[in-house]
Amino acid sequence: MKLYDLDVSGNCYKVRLFASLARIDLELVSVDLANGAHKQPPLSDLNPLGQLPVLEDGPYVVRDSQAILVYLAGAYGGLAWWPAHPQGQADIMQWLSFAANEVQHSLCAARLIKKFAVELDRHQALARSAVVLALLDSHLEHNDWLAIGRPTLADCAVYPYVALAPEGDVDLKPYRHIARWIGRMEALPGYLPKP
Amino acid sequence: MKLYDLDVSGNCYKVRLFASLARIDLELVSVDLANGAHKQPPLSDLNPLGQLPVLEDGPYVVRDSQAILVYLAGAYGGLAWWPAHPQGQADIMQWLSFAANEVQHSLCAARLIKKFAVELDRHQALARSAVVLALLDSHLEHNDWLAIGRPTLADCAVYPYVALAPEGDVDLKPYRHIARWIGRMEALPGYLPKP
Repeated sequence: MKLYDLDVSGNCYKVRLFASLARIDLELVSVDLANGAHKQPPLSDLNPLGQLPVLEDGPYVVRDSQAILVYLAGAYGGLAWWPAHPQGQADIMQWLSFAANEVQHSLCAARLIKKFAVELDRHQALARSAVVLALLDSHLEHNDWLAIGRPTLADCAVYPYVALAPEGDVDLKPYRHIARWIGRMEALPGYLPKP
Repeated sequence: MKLYDLDVSGNCYKVRLFASLARIDLELVSVDLANGAHKQPPLSDLNPLGQLPVLEDGPYVVRDSQAILVYLAGAYGGLAWWPAHPQGQADIMQWLSFAANEVQHSLCAARLIKKFAVELDRHQALARSAVVLALLDSHLEHNDWLAIGRPTLADCAVYPYVALAPEGDVDLKPYRHIARWIGRMEALPGYLPKP
């Protein structure tokens, strides 16, 4: 099973982190993003969006980090990470959307601007980051994990860009409940250190 | 089962549309967004993100339109819309992320700017809209539906802001495969017209 991967990408790290926690073997295929390999065949055929990561499991191909998490958990990871019941899935799904939308356009954007000189609105990214972190900190004041009282895909999807936030000049120090959650994540058996 | 709803919201329409297609009864509770009811109790307790829709099913509360779709399909809608197998869920999940991220920050943003005078980057929203529509049109050239060969939550999540795109000054005429897909959506038994 191949993961088309970029080491520094937080979205790729979501998948590598979950695979490590759930003891799923992945063959990492490093993609030469600097030379545009993600926008040329075979990658552009596997994912017309031109984004990484992409997972290839025999003939089955899936793009989008959240979708890859759902596939890996469902096919190989077990119900601990992605339960079968509607409330559990919906509780986690709230945070998968939060990762795809709110986190992507705040913490991830701030890091893209600072670390990779991507032309995005820095003021907006930092303002949105403050909202996202305040929401998370408040939620984690009363919850050890993002959803259903245990580590799930929700934590794997949201943790990477939170942990990498300082690389976007976003200070995590004011958020003590987030700090404790980061500590709990890093103490999980099989935890894979952030890039 | 209560849906805290805003008639003109495409995200709320996603849920109303799916409930209509799947014959699920919802009690609509109209929220006075103009007077900030979504940022005050009880709504701010049900959803600290201050967004609509929110679903309340007895003691169970879920926010985020994609998560509500997953909950309703899993609990009441049946496997036709959200299958139990990992590949089907992941195929649909790709489009739920696409709805939460790419569509939200392109077609939805363009409509927010034009129709509701929300201060967002119009140039960026229109440029992203062109990318999103080209991707969709290309996918729909070879597929009648977004995922797994039949109407699913993927179509319910992506259709609303595509169908509403002209309200954001985005012209759908160049996209003939999208036009045919819109026709197929509107011909589904139980289809609920867009707001």
